[in-house]
Amino acid sequence: MITVALPKGGLLKDSIRLLQDIGLDFSAFLDSGTRQLQLPDASGKAKGLLVRAQDVPVYVEYGQAHLGIVGYDVLREKKPSVAHLVDLKFGYCRLSVAVKESSSYRSALDLPANGRVASKYVNCAREYFQSLDLPVEIIPLSGSVELGPITGISEAIVDIVSTGRTLHENGLIEIERLYESTARLIAHPLSYRLNVGNMDELISKARHAITVGAG
Amino acid sequence: MITVALPKGGLLKDSIRLLQDIGLDFSAFLDSGTRQLQLPDASGKAKGLLVRAQDVPVYVEYGQAHLGIVGYDVLREKKPSVAHLVDLKFGYCRLSVAVKESSSYRSALDLPANGRVASKYVNCAREYFQSLDLPVEIIPLSGSVELGPITGISEAIVDIVSTGRTLHENGLIEIERLYESTARLIAHPLSYRLNVGNMDELISKARHAITVGAG
Repeated sequence: MITVALPKGGLLKDSIRLLQDIGLDFSAFLDSGTRQLQLPDASGKAKGLLVRAQDVPVYVEYGQAHLGIVGYDVLREKKPSVAHLVDLKFGYCRLSVAVKESSSYRSALDLPANGRVASKYVNCAREYFQSLDLPVEIIPLSGSVELGPITGISEAIVDIVSTGRTLHENGLIEIERLYESTARLIAHPLSYRLNVGNMDELISKARHAITVGAG
Repeated sequence: MITVALPKGGLLKDSIRLLQDIGLDFSAFLDSGTRQLQLPDASGKAKGLLVRAQDVPVYVEYGQAHLGIVGYDVLREKKPSVAHLVDLKFGYCRLSVAVKESSSYRSALDLPANGRVASKYVNCAREYFQSLDLPVEIIPLSGSVELGPITGISEAIVDIVSTGRTLHENGLIEIERLYESTARLIAHPLSYRLNVGNMDELISKARHAITVGAG
């Protein structure tokens, strides 16, 4: 039996729809009544594990889940040893540098050397500013990163932007885009090589579902 | 004007009550209507910053908040450079090792060498097992840590326990206690030394409120 790790939060609905397209029904996770974090799929062929988005690659890396669905942003930040299989196209967002609209900064290189940048994505932020040869101090925040420039703890933030509404509501503007992110189907590398639970067939179906959906 | 960082979540109500006892009224943070993350206190003497519990010591370390309230567990895990001032006595919990009730493990030393331990508190967990000279692999999870032994990704977990209900509901039992935690009043070290905003008076009042409350 194959185990699939599903992400709580914004990607869950589309993940369940994609899995339904390839024959695995985990729609029971959407019943608000259930607090279950583990469920068999309706056909009994597979098991679903509902975990935080950040924990999906952990379960897959350790082989406790054979397949998982998670945003590229999480993979890029955590760099887990998992096989990246299919770009599922949903869950679009981007990692961007933002500053106060009232500031004079209009590109990353306008930021002061030895300035401060607040982010949940500390590794991505550090790599980006290193690639620019701009020495900055990265301040790790776990939530409400948009408070950074407002409180003055940092000149800029590196954060996920989807519609841009949060930035706008907080008087911030996007000045650089580090990369774009969508949901990805990932696998435990050894299970993938051994084709555990005939996962190749599921993966082919997922690739097909994406092509049809996009066509 | 002095700035105080308050933690979202379980410690917020008691934090606001404590601050009221020392003359700072941030009860507006409790209005469900307000999404404000920054508020002046009712008297205009101070400003409140409502942030995630984990971010409280970050704002205090960088001096963006002069005072903050946060659980000892967060201080112990993150080791920020802040001054620990007053044990506020509320928000009691403990960091514990738990295993499946059906397992044979009844103390940390029963765990297999090179076993796995899942935790959000990776630094505390690592230090604890090092102090026992028991080599284990720490698996960083960000939520639902109780799933660790249930899914089999780990033999044990290191997690916060307050009533023990979550453990019980998941068929887990506590076998060791690493330390107990309560809320702490912390300060930015330099601001504390310089007595910014006459914070000494506030700190004395907090010490007094705690003694009276406990008496």
